[in-house]
Amino acid sequence: MAMRVNIRIVGRKSSEPWLEEGVQMYESRLKPSNVEVETTWHKDNPALMKGIEQDSQKNHKIVCLDPNGRSTSSEIFCDNLYNWLEEGGSRLSFVIGGAEGLPPELKYPKSSTAQASPPLLSLSALTFTHQFARLLLIEQIYRATEIRKGSGYHK
Amino acid sequence: MAMRVNIRIVGRKSSEPWLEEGVQMYESRLKPSNVEVETTWHKDNPALMKGIEQDSQKNHKIVCLDPNGRSTSSEIFCDNLYNWLEEGGSRLSFVIGGAEGLPPELKYPKSSTAQASPPLLSLSALTFTHQFARLLLIEQIYRATEIRKGSGYHK
Repeated sequence: MAMRVNIRIVGRKSSEPWLEEGVQMYESRLKPSNVEVETTWHKDNPALMKGIEQDSQKNHKIVCLDPNGRSTSSEIFCDNLYNWLEEGGSRLSFVIGGAEGLPPELKYPKSSTAQASPPLLSLSALTFTHQFARLLLIEQIYRATEIRKGSGYHK
Repeated sequence: MAMRVNIRIVGRKSSEPWLEEGVQMYESRLKPSNVEVETTWHKDNPALMKGIEQDSQKNHKIVCLDPNGRSTSSEIFCDNLYNWLEEGGSRLSFVIGGAEGLPPELKYPKSSTAQASPPLLSLSALTFTHQFARLLLIEQIYRATEIRKGSGYHK
């Protein structure tokens, strides 16, 4: 079964063609590894939460990008990525918040809900635009598949 | 006087047009802030060391990118960047090593040389290709100028 990664972002698609071309390059390089990456743009936090609700109902794994999240090496990200995909039945959503960051209900879920709070991942101590974070994330997903294959790309 | 940043990289220019377009976009966005960024590609470590020698003789500031370097927030990177430019008389070289990382003489300079060892900066715990690191670095240089200006870009 193909592994499917959905990048959920609050905000608008970049108007910079080079960013879109970069993402598309990694999307197509990932296909032979049976990993399909797509991006869903949400207009605001409620729209994002609706999408995440749907993911949860289908038991997809959800991982949030957050500056206070855990930062890892590319090798550990690779291990995490494949574990997350396994937990989610080959379905994984990464969440990138808007200018205000993640919605609070994702960072601090109510203890009354049975649902476990999603892991928080930090790409860097530096801040990026959400478009740039998307490019960086898909590059790391591609790198993870190359690490798994034992290719020379990640060296 | 214009501030001049030279990115010295061991390796070849990327053959991906989108990466070059991304770098060029930030280069032109930086011009109104009086910051000129250029890239010098070196074929090997000896060629890089020759370039750094020239920088040192002109008292340019030298900063090396290294996974074991200090990771900072974008705000601290901004402060550091302007301090480094001041120290180097508005001339600063960032060094990105090749596949094997930085030459050892940059990471562990001989104590007999009067020269202080250059600061080591880490962009992320994740690994990138040197081309991608270049794109990430110039985005952060642009972000630093926007932070300095107090614009909304970095929010």
